[in-house]
Amino acid sequence: MAQALALAAEGPRGVNPQVGAVILAADGAVLATGYHRGSGTAHAEVDALSQLDAGQARGATAVVTLEPCNHTGRTGPCALALIDAGIARVVYATSDPGAVSGGGADRLRAAGVDVVKGLREGEARALIASWLTRTRLARPFVTVKWAQTLDGRAAAADGTSQWITGAAARADVHRRRAAADAIVAGIGTILADDTALTARDGDDLLPTQPQPVVVGHREVPPSARVRQHPREMIHVREHDPAKIVADLHERGIHSVFIEGGPTVASAFLRAGLVDELLVYVAPALLGGPHLALDEIGIGTIADIMRFHRPEVTILGEDILIRVTREASADGSG
Amino acid sequence: MAQALALAAEGPRGVNPQVGAVILAADGAVLATGYHRGSGTAHAEVDALSQLDAGQARGATAVVTLEPCNHTGRTGPCALALIDAGIARVVYATSDPGAVSGGGADRLRAAGVDVVKGLREGEARALIASWLTRTRLARPFVTVKWAQTLDGRAAAADGTSQWITGAAARADVHRRRAAADAIVAGIGTILADDTALTARDGDDLLPTQPQPVVVGHREVPPSARVRQHPREMIHVREHDPAKIVADLHERGIHSVFIEGGPTVASAFLRAGLVDELLVYVAPALLGGPHLALDEIGIGTIADIMRFHRPEVTILGEDILIRVTREASADGSG
Repeated sequence: MAQALALAAEGPRGVNPQVGAVILAADGAVLATGYHRGSGTAHAEVDALSQLDAGQARGATAVVTLEPCNHTGRTGPCALALIDAGIARVVYATSDPGAVSGGGADRLRAAGVDVVKGLREGEARALIASWLTRTRLARPFVTVKWAQTLDGRAAAADGTSQWITGAAARADVHRRRAAADAIVAGIGTILADDTALTARDGDDLLPTQPQPVVVGHREVPPSARVRQHPREMIHVREHDPAKIVADLHERGIHSVFIEGGPTVASAFLRAGLVDELLVYVAPALLGGPHLALDEIGIGTIADIMRFHRPEVTILGEDILIRVTREASADGSG
Repeated sequence: MAQALALAAEGPRGVNPQVGAVILAADGAVLATGYHRGSGTAHAEVDALSQLDAGQARGATAVVTLEPCNHTGRTGPCALALIDAGIARVVYATSDPGAVSGGGADRLRAAGVDVVKGLREGEARALIASWLTRTRLARPFVTVKWAQTLDGRAAAADGTSQWITGAAARADVHRRRAAADAIVAGIGTILADDTALTARDGDDLLPTQPQPVVVGHREVPPSARVRQHPREMIHVREHDPAKIVADLHERGIHSVFIEGGPTVASAFLRAGLVDELLVYVAPALLGGPHLALDEIGIGTIADIMRFHRPEVTILGEDILIRVTREASADGSG
C-alpha cells in the first residue's frame, strides 16, 4: 500500500482523485503498477492491468488506494475489469463515497473476490481530501486560513499587523494558495488592503495560481490589484456561504482557500462549511481588541466548535496548526 | 555529553542545579560517572573523581553539563579538584552565570587545561532553566500557564468553560504544578473559583505539591479550599509583580507557576517578568468576549511581545505550546 500511495501521488491534482494500484502475484512479487493520470485517462487499476498479458493477473492481489469504481464514465467500471482479469483479492485503503461511482467493493464480493478495506486509510484520505468532500457533499473542500499571535490577535491596538508571522510561514501560505483551485476574499478586504490574491515566491508569481474569487455586493474597483491577477477574477455577489460554495461547485472548483479576514471566516464557520483550519501562530502576544476571529454565534461551552486531528508544523519560529472538521479518517467512508 | 545529561537528570530538582559528569580515558573509555544529589552533597565532578584512585584521572577528559564551579561553598571549587586530579581536558555544556560560582573555565585554562564549551548547550540549559534564571536575575523562574481555544478564548459567551481542554492536557498541568516550587493565583481567582492550587492525579494528591501563593490585598476566606492545601498558603499582599517575585525569592522559591487568570498573567507580562509561557490550545473555536489574555499595554506592532524557541506537544487532541522569553540557548551564558 505504501507503493500504491506513492504511485497515487504521481498523478496530477485536479478534477479526478489521485489513485495508485499495485498488482501482486501470490508470492508477493510485483506484477504491475499503475496510477491515474487525470481526467479521461485509464483508472489506476486498469492502467496496471493493461501492462499484463491475458491471464497473467489470474489469482493475483490488487492493492488500490481507493475503492475500485463501479460505474461507466469515460472509462469502464474498474470493479468489472478486476473481476474479468481474474483478480482473487482486492485490498483498498478507503471507500468511494460517490452515489454513482461507489459500491465497487460489494460488486467484487458478489463475484467471489476477497475484499479488504482500511489499510493506511488515513494517508489515502489525506491525499484526496478535497475530492472526497466534493464527492460526498457535492461542494468544494473549504480551507480557512488566518495568522495570529498566540493570544489570538491579528493586529496591534492601532491596527498595524506587518508582520506577525515570519518569512517561512508566509512562504508556506503562498505554496498552499498555489495548490488550491480558488482563493476567496471578501470585498471588504479587497477595498481595505487591495489584496492581489496571487501565489508568490517573493515578488515572483508561482507557476500555478488559484482562481481569485471576490465575494460580496460592492463593486471591485477598476484599479484593484486582483484585476491584474493572471487568472480572471470571479465576483460572486453573495454573502451566504452556502450559495457561494454552490456557485463555485458549479464552476468545477474543488478546493477553496479562504483568507478574507474575520468576517468571511466567521460566516463560513457559522454556516458549518469549513473542512479544515490552517492557523499560523506567531510565538508572540499583543493583547488588545483586534482579534483574528470575532463572533461565531456560540453562547455556551456545550456548543463549542470542535476540530480534530491536529497537525503541527514549526515554520521558522512560527507554528502552523492544521485541524480538520472530520473527527476520524473513516467518518464518512 | 548525552550520558552526562542523563546522569544530571537523575539528581533531585531543588535549590541546586542538576549536573552530571563523565570522566573519559584518552581512548574514550568511561573511567567514572557522577551527578549532583542535592544541596550539601558532592558536586558531579567531585562525585565522579571520588570513584577513581589517585593518579587515575591524570590526562583524562571530564565531560560536565555545567561549567565547573570556582567557589568554595559547602564543597570546594570543582575547577580546583579537576586541576589537582590532573584532568587534561574539560568539555562542558553551558556556563555558570553566577557572580560567585562562575569563572571556573578561566581558572581551568589558566592552569593549562584544554577547555571546550557549548556541546548540547540547549539541552543542558533546559534542564536547569529555573536555576539559571535565579542565579542570573536573583529571582524565581516564572512560568505563566493558561488554556484556550485556537482563537484565544478561555470561556464561552455565557462564561462557561468546563472543559475546553481534555483529560491529557489537564493531567499535564498537574504534573507541571507538582514540579514547580510555588503556584500563584490572584485573590480574585480564589474568591471566584475557590481554586485548591493542588497538584492532583484525578482526585488524588500527587506526592510533591507546590507552595500555594495567593497575591492581592483582599482576605482569603477561612473556608477557602486553598487553606486545606497540604502546604501552608503564603499570602503576598501585593499587586506589583516585581515585589511579588522579590518576596518569593527571599523565601527560597526558585520556580513559580502562574495560573491566576488573565489579570495576574497580564500584570506579570507587562512587568517583563515571564520567562516561559505554557499555552494549552484546544483545537476548537468559541468566538466572543472571554479572552484568555486581555490587555497587555501594547499599542503598535513594533512593540509586539515576542517569545522564542516554540516546543509543541500533542496531548490527546490538544496542543501544548511552550515558548520562552530568552531568544537563544546562549543568550546569557
